[in-house]
Order: sequence, then C-alpha cells, then structure tokens
Amino acid sequence: MAKHEHPVAAFGWAARDSSGHLSPFNFSRRATGENDVTFKVLYCGICHSDLHSIRNEWGGSTYPMVPGHEVVGVVTEVGSKVTKFKVGDKVGVGCLVGSCRSCESCANDLENYCPDTIATYNSKYNDGTTTHGGYSNIMVADEHFVVAIPDSLPLDGAAPLLCAGITVYSPLRYYGLDKPGLHVGVVGLGGLGHMAVKFAKAMGLKVTVISTSPSKKQEAIERLGADSFLDSRDQEDMQSANGTMDGIIDTVSAIHPLQPLLGLLKSNGKLVMVGAPSKPLQLPAFSLLMGRKALGGSLIGGLKETQEMINFASEHSIVSDIEVIPMDYVNKAMERLARADVRYRFVIDIENSLKIAA
Amino acid sequence: MAKHEHPVAAFGWAARDSSGHLSPFNFSRRATGENDVTFKVLYCGICHSDLHSIRNEWGGSTYPMVPGHEVVGVVTEVGSKVTKFKVGDKVGVGCLVGSCRSCESCANDLENYCPDTIATYNSKYNDGTTTHGGYSNIMVADEHFVVAIPDSLPLDGAAPLLCAGITVYSPLRYYGLDKPGLHVGVVGLGGLGHMAVKFAKAMGLKVTVISTSPSKKQEAIERLGADSFLDSRDQEDMQSANGTMDGIIDTVSAIHPLQPLLGLLKSNGKLVMVGAPSKPLQLPAFSLLMGRKALGGSLIGGLKETQEMINFASEHSIVSDIEVIPMDYVNKAMERLARADVRYRFVIDIENSLKIAA
Repeated sequence: MAKHEHPVAAFGWAARDSSGHLSPFNFSRRATGENDVTFKVLYCGICHSDLHSIRNEWGGSTYPMVPGHEVVGVVTEVGSKVTKFKVGDKVGVGCLVGSCRSCESCANDLENYCPDTIATYNSKYNDGTTTHGGYSNIMVADEHFVVAIPDSLPLDGAAPLLCAGITVYSPLRYYGLDKPGLHVGVVGLGGLGHMAVKFAKAMGLKVTVISTSPSKKQEAIERLGADSFLDSRDQEDMQSANGTMDGIIDTVSAIHPLQPLLGLLKSNGKLVMVGAPSKPLQLPAFSLLMGRKALGGSLIGGLKETQEMINFASEHSIVSDIEVIPMDYVNKAMERLARADVRYRFVIDIENSLKIAA
Repeated sequence: MAKHEHPVAAFGWAARDSSGHLSPFNFSRRATGENDVTFKVLYCGICHSDLHSIRNEWGGSTYPMVPGHEVVGVVTEVGSKVTKFKVGDKVGVGCLVGSCRSCESCANDLENYCPDTIATYNSKYNDGTTTHGGYSNIMVADEHFVVAIPDSLPLDGAAPLLCAGITVYSPLRYYGLDKPGLHVGVVGLGGLGHMAVKFAKAMGLKVTVISTSPSKKQEAIERLGADSFLDSRDQEDMQSANGTMDGIIDTVSAIHPLQPLLGLLKSNGKLVMVGAPSKPLQLPAFSLLMGRKALGGSLIGGLKETQEMINFASEHSIVSDIEVIPMDYVNKAMERLARADVRYRFVIDIENSLKIAA
C-alpha cells in the first residue's frame, strides 16, 4: 500500500478516480535524504492544472492522486549536505521535484524543459514510487527544487507565484518583453493573467488586458493597474489597437482565434502562449510573415529563474489575489474554478484546516 | 495608355489577364529623378511569386503586369543627388522600389515591414502610376532601393539573391540561426531552400535538408553541401532526428503539418516560415510550450540587410543554381516552375533575348 512505501507518515486529500472528488488520504513520504529539505506545508494554491489532472482531462492520471504544486511552508529538517536551507526557513515547491540534472536544459538552469522531469504530483520518482503534491501536511524535496520565500512576502499570497507566477514571469523575460515602456497585452484575466498584469506593470510596461468579459474592465484597470482593456469580441475595439503591441502573453487554454491577436502586434511582435488548448489552433502563416511576428510557447520556468521571480515579487510586493479556503472546501472550490468563479486563485489553508485522521 | 504615362519608352513582357500568359508589351518608365538610378536590365530571375501574381492566385493582380523582382543590370544614368552609384555600376533591384521612409520599420532599416511599401511590380507609385518589374529592358528606382552587385558575383546567378537569397538570409540572422555549429533544418529544396542551404553552410552551420522527395537526397548532400537529409514522409527518419535542431527554415508554401517539424527542434528552437500557405495551418500549442519553441515568420529583408547579404554572398562565392533562358521561353518556364521542374531558379537573359518590337 502506498502508505507503506516510505517511512514517514503523511496525510492529505486525494482524488481516487476521474470523478476528481477529493477526500482524506493517508500516505507516506521518504525520510529526509542528505540533499533533501523536509517542510511542514502551510498553504497550497489550487492551479487549474490540478482540476484537469484530478479529472484526467489530459490523460495519464493515476490514482490515488494528491494534487498541488503551489506549496509553501516552513522547513522542519534538512539533510546533511543541504547548504541553502535551515530549519525554520520559509520555502516553496512548484511544479517540479526532479529532473535528470545532466542534460543541456538542466545544465542551462532550464530544468522545466528537461525531458525527464519529475512532476510534483502524478509522476514517479526514480525509485518508481509516486509523487504527491501539496494538498498534504508535509513535503520533502531535493534542495535544488526548493525555493526560499523572503519574509516580506505573505505565504498565502506567495503560494501561487510558484506556478502561476513563474509561468508568466519567465516568458516576459525570455521573449524580451521586460523593457520599460514596451506595450504588452495579456489575454485572459484569471490566475495566470492577473499575475501577468502585476509582473508586467512592475517591469515598467504598458499593459492592456484582452478578455471576452467586458465586465472585467473595471477590475483590470482599477484593481490590477492595467493601462487599458480590450473586449476581444468587439471587432472595433480590437481593430483600434491593431499594430500597437510589442508582445502578448496569452493565458487562455480554450480554443480561440490567433489572427486577431497577431493583428494587435507591431512588427517583430511576439505572441506567447502559456495556456495549452487541447486541440490545434488555426494559424494563418501570412500573419507571421507580414511584420516578422513570432508565436512562442513557454512552460513554467527553471529553478534559478523561479527564485529570481520570487525575489522580484518580494522587491515589488507582488502576490496573487487570493481566496483562502479550508481543506474541506476543496471540492466546492474545484466546482467554482471550473466556471472561473474566483478572484483569482484559491489557496488552501493547510496548516489550520487539514485535520489529520487517526 | 500605359505607354504614355511616363516620358521614357520601355519594353517588356506582360501578363494581360489571369491566364498568366506573358507576351511582348510596350510601356513607359519615368525619367531619371534626382534621387534615381536608371539601369539597363541584363538578367531577371523568375520567382514563384511571379507565377502566383500573373495568375492572380493571391488576388489583387492588375493587368497588364510586367513581373520580375530579381533584377540586375548596369547603370545608365543617375540623378543629381545620387551618391551611391555611377554610370557603369552593376546594380540590382529586389522586391521593393519604395516605402514610406518615415515609419518605425523604415527608421530601423526594415522597409520590408513598412505598411506602405511599393512593390517592384503590380503596385502603385505615389503618383498613382503602376510599377512594372524586371521582365523588361530598363528599370528606374530611387537609389535607396538599389543595391550594388560586386564584380566578383556573376550577374545571372546573383539575380535570385535579390528575393530568394534575402528571404532566407534574413531569418537566419534575425532568429540567431547564424552561429557556427548550430544545426539548422531547411524544409523544401527549391529556389528558396537551395539558397538557405548555401547561406547556412557559409555561416558554419550543420544543415539538414527536409524534403518530401527522397530523390533529392544525393543532390542536397553532394551538390549543395548539406550534411544530411530527412525524408519528411518517413516517420522513422523524422523521429530519428527529433530534438536535434536549433532552427528550421521552412520554405514550403503548400499546406503541411507543423507538428513533425516542431518535434525536430531542441528546446528554444525556432521554426521560421518564409513560404506562405494560402490556408491556415494546424498548430498544436502544446508543441510550442514543451521546450519553449517558437514559430516565426520572415518576409524578404530591408535594403541595408539586402546589401549585407549580397556582400556576404560575394565573400563566400554564393550564387543561385540557375537555368538561363531566353525571354521567349518564359511561358514554358512558368509551366515547368509550376511543377517544380527547375534546378533551382530560372533566370531570363534579358540583354541577349528581349527583342524590342517596333
């Protein structure tokens, strides 16, 4: 049984099948290895991937599954060779708990693009045992995959930085959309999109939110500080902004047309997809040739950059806008997340609401 | 009548309707303006765009149309303010004879991305008269849109550099695929593709030709100097090269699947389209996210870069592989071009075969 795989008793909430219903679950964690950091989980964000995964919407889900890859807590034990952390430190774990450490991607601090990553949950450690995520009382991970959370960041609002935050921060940097004065569009105002607005504003960019929900205009501008708003279903609105943007971060994972977004770009502009529509999108190649535009992808970020993002967030007081919930609200939260009824991220108060069963 | 629009009598071959049939045509050119260079046309390459344009396959064709935007010749007259050229110089004109000269693209030597370019044929000058291309005895253009052809380059083989050459040279530079040791794929071995192989090899790259025609393997490697060859219809062949390329220059303008090409790229790899399929392609977004890949476009090049490309070609003795034809073979050449029956570019010997009618 899973709970006997490892020596350390652990407890969390797991999905048991593709209904995705989560319920209390006893399992086990490995003992703290010489390179490991063990920490008590305090908060865990609910990422939209968690919902896809527990319902097996991408395929490949195995059960029981303890989701959660926006995990923050306080170190309780470190291995003998650990150099970066000590007991009592505030730390976080994002989407990855392992990679090959020897490929070109790993050598370039891009563990996220290693072909042999070990995901924080629904994956296998090299010993064949299953990884389990942060909807649980304790985590253990190689220190390489642990980031430090500065004291200045509230831990609950910081949790979503570990996936939503790095997912939008990394492409702003990589695609050169981080120069003050550039004009960047953010498509979709959800967990990812609202973080993109915050990071882009902190980098000194002009930010336009592009959304199918004109009702979000006020909050985009007044609450999040966006400079302007485009209703993507209003052709006049969209055409008025044609050729004005240096880049766009597209966070939408539903099928949507690319041509109107490519039209918003200036010459040399970049449309970066961080959401992953399940079916192919229609790409009009002419829209790329005219103006030498590019369509790129980006997937979370490497560990070095994740720490850099956390530090940047700390310097600029950036956290996620969250709704903190108790553990036993999680199934209800998943229902609300499925209909995008959250401003903008649910975070589970693990410390105060995860009641460990006998 | 067109031949009275301007003071200088000119003669060429024009298409009269969307049959695309070309026949002798009397027209006129403007007198040499103060910034103009007038030159006697010696050779003109036949670009695949000429075929699309004379047949109105992209829409927007107006007739009569004198095609040709790979034009080389010898200067016969220069305007009073011309500084770069003198009578007797060997010169060329590519796809553009004008742009706004004041937009951001023009200011950055990217006239090709100016929204108000004036194409070398099938376009309008600012005075409303029609532009006509190089299937004609003389050309006149503002010196800004004229490039110098060094003596070391044979003029017939140099003509296709002005469109085919710059079309593939520019993306190799812009997308950073010009560093010795990088591995670049070239999709399609035609007018564009064979130039891409030559430029990429001269830049010190490892080059793999990717083609649906395995019969081209020998010529790709032995004649053009490619390092390897992939049959894009052979799944094993393709999969054996997965994740090995830093970039791909895709010259194919037929509808074709992108996913297998994206699979060939390493992390951070770039697939650059220089052909323009008439219908949208299917883009699986996941293929971009995994490995942070990008799909870009590129359209010819600016004038500064075109001169740079010509100079690079001269230094590395790069010309197009051509079949020189007389003017009255042009309709037959178009038929052969339509079925890709040319290695790799037809070039019309204008000087010796364009017989001026009474």
